[in-house]
Amino acid sequence: MKVLVAGGAGFIGSNLIEALLDKGHQVVCIDNMSLGNTDNLNMAMAHPSFILYEGDICDRDFLSKVFKREKPEYVFHLAANSDIQASAKNPDVEYRNTYTTTFNLLSVMREYGVKKFFFASTSAVYGDKPGILLDENTPNLEPISYYGAAKLGSEALISAFSYMNDFKALIFRFPNVIGPHLTHGVIFDFVRKLQNDSDNLEILGDGNQTKPYIYVADLVEAILYFMNEIEDAQNPVTLYNIGVNTATSVKRIADIICEEMKLEHVVYHFTGGAGGWKGDVPRFTYCLDKVHRAGWTAECESDDAVRRTVRHVLGVSGVQER
Amino acid sequence: MKVLVAGGAGFIGSNLIEALLDKGHQVVCIDNMSLGNTDNLNMAMAHPSFILYEGDICDRDFLSKVFKREKPEYVFHLAANSDIQASAKNPDVEYRNTYTTTFNLLSVMREYGVKKFFFASTSAVYGDKPGILLDENTPNLEPISYYGAAKLGSEALISAFSYMNDFKALIFRFPNVIGPHLTHGVIFDFVRKLQNDSDNLEILGDGNQTKPYIYVADLVEAILYFMNEIEDAQNPVTLYNIGVNTATSVKRIADIICEEMKLEHVVYHFTGGAGGWKGDVPRFTYCLDKVHRAGWTAECESDDAVRRTVRHVLGVSGVQER
Repeated sequence: MKVLVAGGAGFIGSNLIEALLDKGHQVVCIDNMSLGNTDNLNMAMAHPSFILYEGDICDRDFLSKVFKREKPEYVFHLAANSDIQASAKNPDVEYRNTYTTTFNLLSVMREYGVKKFFFASTSAVYGDKPGILLDENTPNLEPISYYGAAKLGSEALISAFSYMNDFKALIFRFPNVIGPHLTHGVIFDFVRKLQNDSDNLEILGDGNQTKPYIYVADLVEAILYFMNEIEDAQNPVTLYNIGVNTATSVKRIADIICEEMKLEHVVYHFTGGAGGWKGDVPRFTYCLDKVHRAGWTAECESDDAVRRTVRHVLGVSGVQER
Repeated sequence: MKVLVAGGAGFIGSNLIEALLDKGHQVVCIDNMSLGNTDNLNMAMAHPSFILYEGDICDRDFLSKVFKREKPEYVFHLAANSDIQASAKNPDVEYRNTYTTTFNLLSVMREYGVKKFFFASTSAVYGDKPGILLDENTPNLEPISYYGAAKLGSEALISAFSYMNDFKALIFRFPNVIGPHLTHGVIFDFVRKLQNDSDNLEILGDGNQTKPYIYVADLVEAILYFMNEIEDAQNPVTLYNIGVNTATSVKRIADIICEEMKLEHVVYHFTGGAGGWKGDVPRFTYCLDKVHRAGWTAECESDDAVRRTVRHVLGVSGVQER
């Protein structure tokens, strides 16, 4: 099948592309290289079934030309701002890169009769609901970040476009994803800080912010597992929470990094407060019953995902063990 | 208080402006006159506390200049596409006039430190959920129209902007509103058809589509009733379903119009099917317990709202009784 991966040079998109090529699909990638980069596509670039269009999904004419030329059957939408701290300072980033990309992709699918859609949503759509087990039926979705708002707005668009145009859509809401090709986030920050100063580590918040981290290979496997199921689905939209049942605190991440860097005497300096930054959801519990019942479970636990990612980051950054 | 009404030359906005001026507020109106018109502002234009800016809220520079100059304290957002059938053919209308207007207003409020916001949302955010009593805690909001999607996306933006910038926001989700200054919809269509042919009336669907119609004066009264309550609210966003407990079928609307036009022998021709058009929610039941408990109830029942509106439409269109 010919598929289009929007945001395919980014962290999750590039991992997905490798898996789709492995499965024998033809892959059309669009990326504006704002967060993605061609290094992530090294494996794909050498593959005969891969083609890259460098350009902006917010440019409707460009997008329309790619669809007209390539005629994809399935669109995987992984183009978005993924740096919540950055957009907290400038919400325009989410309006443009997260919401408008969704609107434009759905509009061009409508124009060219493309019917199948995958969307990478987020646990951030739920907002901050301490003490509530978040499942797909949780009411009152009140995102507290511009990122979560743009993703929830995108889900609403997917609902309407799917109903109006007989699309079948698959939406995954997942928390932090980590692994190869990761470009930013707490693991990166800590490694960089410790590379600069191996005695001290500043940790935002009180270090107890605890989140489930899913390894990108598990997420990609879930996409492959469910991508064809939607054809037989009764509803236009099939929605799953995706994640791991375990979680890792920020302090535990620091510990794992120190272990992997063989640093034994690092002093942690906590900035204090419950959340790392405004718009951050400090702690949540995520119900995965629906996706487990449907036959998928993550292989890699949260701590393990962190450790594997740390090793990747250290390998890429070429840090010498002491 | 100096308030800004976005979309103030439109149907609901112009009714709200008259009430706000009556209450002694200074009113700044912005409208691009795409659906609004200055006829709706006849009363306001003669008032010394009123000023109109004709321009597009999608133009951020224009909007920013109005905020800089006028320094409003409270923003009432009634600028939106309101013609669901029109946007079904061209979703760009909702992206621009419904979603982007919300994003721009919130962004400029953030820029100028304006903290109070009213948003006109819709029962269309719930989607088509036959047999479910729709209350504010109903989960799985799955809009089936681009209009409903853009409104739900707007609610998500309001949640995030309010949390991030200490705004207090009031959101009303209401169904069809009718009354003076109405510009389109089923009542208009039927009157126009009957003015052209007083023997026959084509009715979309099977005529059993039954919806609650709220009279615009009741809605405006609800806005005035709750607009200052939000200051003391614990949550950034206060959300109410607003409406009437009664409902009127499309066939009953036709009957009322025929009665008011003194037409006794009109033959109805039904096009058939449950919904009037794709994206229409044919029938729903709306829970108003929360707003009733908070002390507000509509004065005008649904049938009565229809009859009053028909009289207004006939008065404006100058139809002679036969």
